[in-house]
Amino acid sequence: MTHQNNSGEYTMETRTPVTVLGLGLMGQALAGALLGAGHPVTVWNRTPAKAGDLVARGARLAGSAEEAVAAGPLVIVCLSDYDAVRGLLGPLGGALGGRVLVNLTSGTSQEARETAEWAAGQAAAAYLDGAIMATPAAIGTDAVVVYSGPQAAFDRHEPALRSLGSGATYLGADHGLAALYDVAVLSLAWNVLNGYLQGAALLGAAGVDAVTFTPIALKGIETVNTWLPGYAKQIDEGAYPAYDSTLDTHVAAMNHLIHESEALGVNAELPRFVKALADRAIAGGRGGDGYAALVEQFRSPAGAGA
Amino acid sequence: MTHQNNSGEYTMETRTPVTVLGLGLMGQALAGALLGAGHPVTVWNRTPAKAGDLVARGARLAGSAEEAVAAGPLVIVCLSDYDAVRGLLGPLGGALGGRVLVNLTSGTSQEARETAEWAAGQAAAAYLDGAIMATPAAIGTDAVVVYSGPQAAFDRHEPALRSLGSGATYLGADHGLAALYDVAVLSLAWNVLNGYLQGAALLGAAGVDAVTFTPIALKGIETVNTWLPGYAKQIDEGAYPAYDSTLDTHVAAMNHLIHESEALGVNAELPRFVKALADRAIAGGRGGDGYAALVEQFRSPAGAGA
Ligand SMILES: NC(=O)c1ccc[n+]([C@@H]2O[C@H](COP(=O)([O-])OP(=O)(O)OC[C@H]3O[C@@H](n4cnc5c(N)ncnc54)[C@H](OP(=O)(O)O)[C@@H]3O)[C@@H](O)[C@H]2O)c1
Ligand SMILES: NC(=O)c1ccc[n+]([C@@H]2O[C@H](COP(=O)([O-])OP(=O)(O)OC[C@H]3O[C@@H](n4cnc5c(N)ncnc54)[C@H](OP(=O)(O)O)[C@@H]3O)[C@@H](O)[C@H]2O)c1
Repeated sequence: MTHQNNSGEYTMETRTPVTVLGLGLMGQALAGALLGAGHPVTVWNRTPAKAGDLVARGARLAGSAEEAVAAGPLVIVCLSDYDAVRGLLGPLGGALGGRVLVNLTSGTSQEARETAEWAAGQAAAAYLDGAIMATPAAIGTDAVVVYSGPQAAFDRHEPALRSLGSGATYLGADHGLAALYDVAVLSLAWNVLNGYLQGAALLGAAGVDAVTFTPIALKGIETVNTWLPGYAKQIDEGAYPAYDSTLDTHVAAMNHLIHESEALGVNAELPRFVKALADRAIAGGRGGDGYAALVEQFRSPAGAGA
Repeated sequence: MTHQNNSGEYTMETRTPVTVLGLGLMGQALAGALLGAGHPVTVWNRTPAKAGDLVARGARLAGSAEEAVAAGPLVIVCLSDYDAVRGLLGPLGGALGGRVLVNLTSGTSQEARETAEWAAGQAAAAYLDGAIMATPAAIGTDAVVVYSGPQAAFDRHEPALRSLGSGATYLGADHGLAALYDVAVLSLAWNVLNGYLQGAALLGAAGVDAVTFTPIALKGIETVNTWLPGYAKQIDEGAYPAYDSTLDTHVAAMNHLIHESEALGVNAELPRFVKALADRAIAGGRGGDGYAALVEQFRSPAGAGA
């Protein structure tokens, strides 16, 4: 097969034919990015009308999921949830034989591992479970999509997977890893947002617009980001010497935050939660350590106050 | 006054003489940055020995705080806390007359406002209360230092203040604002760190190093950062239409996080706290809105479960 590259020259480079099952918001973005990167793309969706734009751009619309799967060695599936995936793939069974199946549907690590077992039973050549940490608009640009399962399958199809997002990352052989990274990063995102909203509420009560707060909030996040690689090493090594501030110093400022929140009549639950966690670490003898020592609190399954 | 600039040329530019009271880790960094920017610097510290390096670099060590304050129009004070500031400045009284006093000691908004009142009584020309959102190492580079109080005083001394950190930001006339921004940004920092530690604990339980998690965590934070300006507008406007994900969708993933945490035996308190907040917003009819709708929960003084 020959392709015309960006400079208009013909090359002998071959782009893998890819099948995309599911053309919701995300599936359409995935198929579109593959087309944009020059892959032959076969698509299928329960509601065929959603394939219109993609067909206009060169995709082939298969008449059935089975026909779509027959079209090539790489099958990407992205539906609402794993129940839908089981419902769609279950009847296909052997048609997946010899294919690499990449499931980008969001779910739990257990669902991922169960699907991997099922796929092994269908003699699918390999099953990769992925998680998309991006919105459809970022697909085809620098989106982070993480993959877990057999490394050989990722390596073989890395060019196609990288065309979905330059942040394509292989995590490891355990099929559950993509789902775990997904919730870990979501958890981080919610906490960033909650910290931001707490600050916006506090300053809002003092008459400061969120739009005014935001550039300084972003600068603050940038500063914290520079600490994370050092904290990561401390976490892996299990020793948390304080570089700048000790937990004792942090707790003094946490008390300021609680008092300012109460004085301004905004919610102080999150500040109190944050301080309770630090108090527990200090009660455990960590007052002279740095912030990363709190990882031990997050590791312990004990409930609040334990 | 003539000064030699970096190229060795003499210029007629005049740099304001600055007094720095307090030469702890931070005070030394402040005085050093002013010297580096070509300001004549007079220093004082309770323990004079800490002035050694600065004197070697051209600072003048005053014999008393009163003498130091007499040296110029701009006086910067940075001590452990406001008690120390009151103890030091109280006896100086009228010596501050006509000076601009800039207090970079960490404290509460109430302490800042009380100090402003006290300074007005001493006929200090103006009082600015500031907060340093950086470590000593960042002083003189891109450190963010925020200031509140009379704008004319900030404008007059902006070049000197900017030499402490290019992120010098004037916040407004209310002297309490710098302290409020300080805790708002600290609060954000703690929540970023807690979200990160929760993720590190979860993945750690699945055998993933924190060093391995960190680049993807940083990418996740970067993505969230791109949402904040849009959320800020929604917060100021009081309407929170969902662009990508609704709160209902977020809560489904929050349940995944709780289950994964429990399955791996790590602490699920923070995930449960995060979900409880979202559940309350949904119970209040916000399930179809975007994440910024949670700001209403942070604004409400009601305690947990209220
Ligand atoms: N959108 C995002 O921002 C985003 C970001 C990260 C991850 N994700 C994940 O990507 C996946 C897809 O999301 P989306 O935004 O594309 O959702 P969506 O727009 O709601 O599309 C859902 C897709 O699933 C199909 N589907 C649902 N039930 C089915 C069934 N029983 N049998 C066959 N097909 C079925 C739908 O087919 P019909 O068209 O026939 O209904 C449609 O193609 C989800 O797991 C989501 O969590 C999405
Ligand atoms: N270091 C940071 O990373 C950082 C970051 C942001 C904000 N800050 C804030 O900056 C301020 C100073 O911090 P720092 O790191 O410089 O602390 P530090 O190294 O402990 O220095 C404390 C300073 O306060 C002086 N002092 C304390 N009590 C005094 C008293 N009763 N009378 C006169 N002087 C007294 C000390 O004098 P002696 O030398 O005689 O003891 C010393 O100059 C604090 O409010 C801190 O919260 C620090």
